[in-house]
Amino acid sequence: MRVFSASLERLIEQFESLPGIGHKTAQRLAFYVLDLPEEAARAFADAIMDAKHSVRQCSICCNLSDSMVCPICDNPDRDASTICVVSDPRDVAALERTHEYHGRYHVLHGVISPMNHVGPDDLRIKELLARIAEGGVQEVIMATDPNTEGEATAMYLSRLLRPFSVKVTRLAYGVPVGGHLEYADEITLLRALDGRREYS
Amino acid sequence: MRVFSASLERLIEQFESLPGIGHKTAQRLAFYVLDLPEEAARAFADAIMDAKHSVRQCSICCNLSDSMVCPICDNPDRDASTICVVSDPRDVAALERTHEYHGRYHVLHGVISPMNHVGPDDLRIKELLARIAEGGVQEVIMATDPNTEGEATAMYLSRLLRPFSVKVTRLAYGVPVGGHLEYADEITLLRALDGRREYS
Repeated sequence: MRVFSASLERLIEQFESLPGIGHKTAQRLAFYVLDLPEEAARAFADAIMDAKHSVRQCSICCNLSDSMVCPICDNPDRDASTICVVSDPRDVAALERTHEYHGRYHVLHGVISPMNHVGPDDLRIKELLARIAEGGVQEVIMATDPNTEGEATAMYLSRLLRPFSVKVTRLAYGVPVGGHLEYADEITLLRALDGRREYS
Repeated sequence: MRVFSASLERLIEQFESLPGIGHKTAQRLAFYVLDLPEEAARAFADAIMDAKHSVRQCSICCNLSDSMVCPICDNPDRDASTICVVSDPRDVAALERTHEYHGRYHVLHGVISPMNHVGPDDLRIKELLARIAEGGVQEVIMATDPNTEGEATAMYLSRLLRPFSVKVTRLAYGVPVGGHLEYADEITLLRALDGRREYS
């Protein structure tokens, strides 16, 4: 027995199909959208299709962009001699929030994962090699996720980059700032001990 | 400094404008939608506008419906002599999940709330009175939220209904006091239906 109108049920189903959204939340969101003014609902619907149609990958760093070249690659103030390699566009956003990195990025769009049938050819690796082959790059910072697959991908890339005269570095491992030492796992603590620095 | 494309940022903002959706979740949802096939994204966008345009209020019970008369009011198997009064369409859904109520509903679309400047005239009260004046109704079950405003609204309605020869009852306090009806589980709602009491 249908309780709501068919179109409302369809909207609830659409929200429910999103990751991490349960039925109660989907219902709440659908009712919220239903109460929006016509223009606001239209803006929401349009934003979905606009994003679908406009978003492409930057022809240089492969980050998501509306234009051929993304705002970061297009910014002459960003240091083109340093490339930070990440697996996902969201990692670019995370690093940009530090406001301390002034180099450029390269987005792999995944990590090597034999379990999930993702090999090197499925990632934007040849685009990275092409950028480095062009010259002008002095350092490549591996900033893939600090887990097995991210680590393996960074290791694989560092080997690929050996023939080029670039410095290849990796983000430091250690205890997360603001956390509690007692909750850090053994591996993290070991890495933090290994990477300890002298007070200057 | 924009990190993602403008259209992607707009989509993230749209999701973030929804109630209970933070920035991280909005980002996750936007990326999910971006990865959807064209038709699936189109279905989502269309569902929003379809719901906006198709959903109206049932001309009898004021529940949300795509048609002039909602499926429940249109069902001859539902007992027209009993009307369950709720404040929100979601409460109809909650009560329907008990599968034990076979009467009809009346959706007030709110509760009397002087704090929020909602008075009796802002609710579908005259529609309810018109239904009862038409005759054939034997019992009106008050099923507004079991909190102060819901209680006060039910009390107000019960007084309004005194001139009519209808039994006015209230859901039993099996529903947790101070909560919201839509989050009550089926068993609690069943108990509440079973133990309903007549207003003295």
